[in-house]
Amino acid sequence: MKQSFISVSPESHFPIQNLPYGIFQPKGSATRAGVAIGEYVLDLSALDEAGLLDGTGITHGKTFHEPSLNAFMALGKPVWKAVRERLQHLLNAETPVLRDDEALRTRAFFPLHEVKMKLPAEIGDYTDFYASKEHATNVGTMFRSKENALMPNWTHLPVGYHGRASSVVPSGTAVRRPLGQRKPKDSDTPVFGPSIQLDFELEIGWLIGPGNAQGEPVPIGEAENHVFGLVLVNDWSARDIQAWEYVPLGPFLAKNFATSISPWVVPLEALEPFREKGPAQEPVPFPYLQQRHPGGFNIQLKVDLTCDDGETICVTETNFKHMYWSIAQQIAHHTITGCNMRPGDLHASGTISGPEPHERGSMLEITWRGAEPVTLQSGKTRSWVEDGDTVTMSGWCEGDGFKIGFGEVSGTVLPAYSEAHILGEKQEGIRT
Amino acid sequence: MKQSFISVSPESHFPIQNLPYGIFQPKGSATRAGVAIGEYVLDLSALDEAGLLDGTGITHGKTFHEPSLNAFMALGKPVWKAVRERLQHLLNAETPVLRDDEALRTRAFFPLHEVKMKLPAEIGDYTDFYASKEHATNVGTMFRSKENALMPNWTHLPVGYHGRASSVVPSGTAVRRPLGQRKPKDSDTPVFGPSIQLDFELEIGWLIGPGNAQGEPVPIGEAENHVFGLVLVNDWSARDIQAWEYVPLGPFLAKNFATSISPWVVPLEALEPFREKGPAQEPVPFPYLQQRHPGGFNIQLKVDLTCDDGETICVTETNFKHMYWSIAQQIAHHTITGCNMRPGDLHASGTISGPEPHERGSMLEITWRGAEPVTLQSGKTRSWVEDGDTVTMSGWCEGDGFKIGFGEVSGTVLPAYSEAHILGEKQEGIRT
Repeated sequence: MKQSFISVSPESHFPIQNLPYGIFQPKGSATRAGVAIGEYVLDLSALDEAGLLDGTGITHGKTFHEPSLNAFMALGKPVWKAVRERLQHLLNAETPVLRDDEALRTRAFFPLHEVKMKLPAEIGDYTDFYASKEHATNVGTMFRSKENALMPNWTHLPVGYHGRASSVVPSGTAVRRPLGQRKPKDSDTPVFGPSIQLDFELEIGWLIGPGNAQGEPVPIGEAENHVFGLVLVNDWSARDIQAWEYVPLGPFLAKNFATSISPWVVPLEALEPFREKGPAQEPVPFPYLQQRHPGGFNIQLKVDLTCDDGETICVTETNFKHMYWSIAQQIAHHTITGCNMRPGDLHASGTISGPEPHERGSMLEITWRGAEPVTLQSGKTRSWVEDGDTVTMSGWCEGDGFKIGFGEVSGTVLPAYSEAHILGEKQEGIRT
Repeated sequence: MKQSFISVSPESHFPIQNLPYGIFQPKGSATRAGVAIGEYVLDLSALDEAGLLDGTGITHGKTFHEPSLNAFMALGKPVWKAVRERLQHLLNAETPVLRDDEALRTRAFFPLHEVKMKLPAEIGDYTDFYASKEHATNVGTMFRSKENALMPNWTHLPVGYHGRASSVVPSGTAVRRPLGQRKPKDSDTPVFGPSIQLDFELEIGWLIGPGNAQGEPVPIGEAENHVFGLVLVNDWSARDIQAWEYVPLGPFLAKNFATSISPWVVPLEALEPFREKGPAQEPVPFPYLQQRHPGGFNIQLKVDLTCDDGETICVTETNFKHMYWSIAQQIAHHTITGCNMRPGDLHASGTISGPEPHERGSMLEITWRGAEPVTLQSGKTRSWVEDGDTVTMSGWCEGDGFKIGFGEVSGTVLPAYSEAHILGEKQEGIRT
């Protein structure tokens, strides 16, 4: 087994087998690219300056000095592979060049808890899929009916929609409860105010590189060449706003106030040992969606809800392997019209729910739209996420004595603004 | 009436009262910002270098030297106003500084037909609304039923959805017919192949600047301060793909292969004389959607279809004033959750259809889903847009002896790729 000269606990998410990429900012310095190893971040701009990344295909003084990974993502798989091999070599316990250079080590390693993590990419477009059959069935049952739960198109194509890129935020960013319209069950007309059904959605996302030219679909056999790496995604959702607005053009305001992602991007290559076949697909998809090798990944996932009083409860434990549509199928479908992908685009899987009740990936499903609230030790209950609550998602693959982890994505809910704040002192235009 | 020393025909879209902004590239030179005047583009980077824009608030050597207007959009209304006043002064027939400086005139003016127009902005997010009651009613009647045409939410909020930013292209870009899934009427299962119901959507778009911070809604009284200017939009749509895919998450592939926009951005200020009250709104909207001054604009619009044999037919003539929801209402709604807008974001109105049959803004409505094809003089008919056809949209406000025009947005349809092209020689991954 590979070992690094950096000591890494077996419980760590970031052994030498992982080496996820991120954008970080040391106190008082510029943002730059790094990889996580154990309790440290290794500064890639410092390695580049020391000449240790020469010959990998990156642009010296540039690729890893930028405030996003977009330029690196644009370089494509051969460069990603070369850099990853170089880093695994440099970090290996047997390799002296970095291990024995104390000055360089001091410049290049930062304790994780001392740096600020940023968004890993400048996200051009964000697309959210709906690839869990269990999730689509659960939601369809609640929003429509059991008979009408899964639409006729669902087993023929990976349903998806365009999300909002501007409001994607890194883990740790507080999320303000949105205002909006909702229609109470017993009313014919909507009311306006703070959402009272604020929810999370547990998802896996992937960042795109290098992408395709407009008009040129990505064949499914090449689709994974455009996957730079994976992150955890919390696609915050206001269910009451969603139920009122979503017909006929889909979710809009219910989703666009915030989407949180984990800051460390796990390379697809690190996940190869955990690849497995997804659920059987019946009917057999069209040729453009037929993937010849297993397209699923065994990634364990969980969601913790920490209430405003500090008590934490695990509300779901599930696995990415349950997803019906694979990453490659989703990319092939998204581009079949010629839609172009650019480096830094984000796709997300849609809520990951498994077949068992404890494997549901949203409060909507966990509490069955509030009918079966979660009860904490304190006696408090939660049907939805309340003000002051923190949602923390984590994910990892279980290797032989090590984990390939995603770290976590978390966010705390701030109370909504009052209507007066929106219409009042700030709205000078309306007074004239 | 204001006059420029540049001679402008009364039929021109670009008199001194307009001065739309664009990004252009002279042959063999860098892209830069300009304004259109008559048959010319005035190079703003050249004016800046000559010191003639000093004191307006732009960044010397930067704002107008960039390959997009985003930096200018970010500066906000006071700077836009100062630059516009300065340009109207410099172009005035009575002002000698530019008029009498032959060397500068030679450097600063380019014939429009000699430059290449680019996208005016780097578009972060693209949002498409659905603000014409007539269009929503027509489409709803065809896709669902007359009784079910207008959803209960439609008169309470401006329905919208997130579009694809990567595939927004400038006028003149050819558009490849998309491949995708559609379900024939007489079949229970879908088929795969080129879309056979390719359509245009006549829309007006607006580019955003400076935008709002995440979590901070834009009050409706301030919404128009975030509108840099307006463009024409052709939101190309594959109706057969749309009908099959759009339930429950809305249009996705049916719209993401291409969206064409006109290259000249008409400043909101140039449209002020053409502002008028929109249709009465019943029920009265929530306070966050109540606009105190008229929010509509009288903009005449038409669409020409030029068939593959060169014959042109005007397929619709309509007006932006018919729109039910105003630009300000759409911005206030979009941000009420705290969704953040960034400079360069594009919003579009949705298809602009008027109350009369000749005022319908899409082939879907014009031919009532193919039931009433358009007939050309040659005897050819068109239910949808065919390969080799060119769609050209234009728009203008009729002033007293002048027009405030948008120029045009046009695009020609290329035949779809064969399935073999998608699955064949390019798909090396699948062969192994």
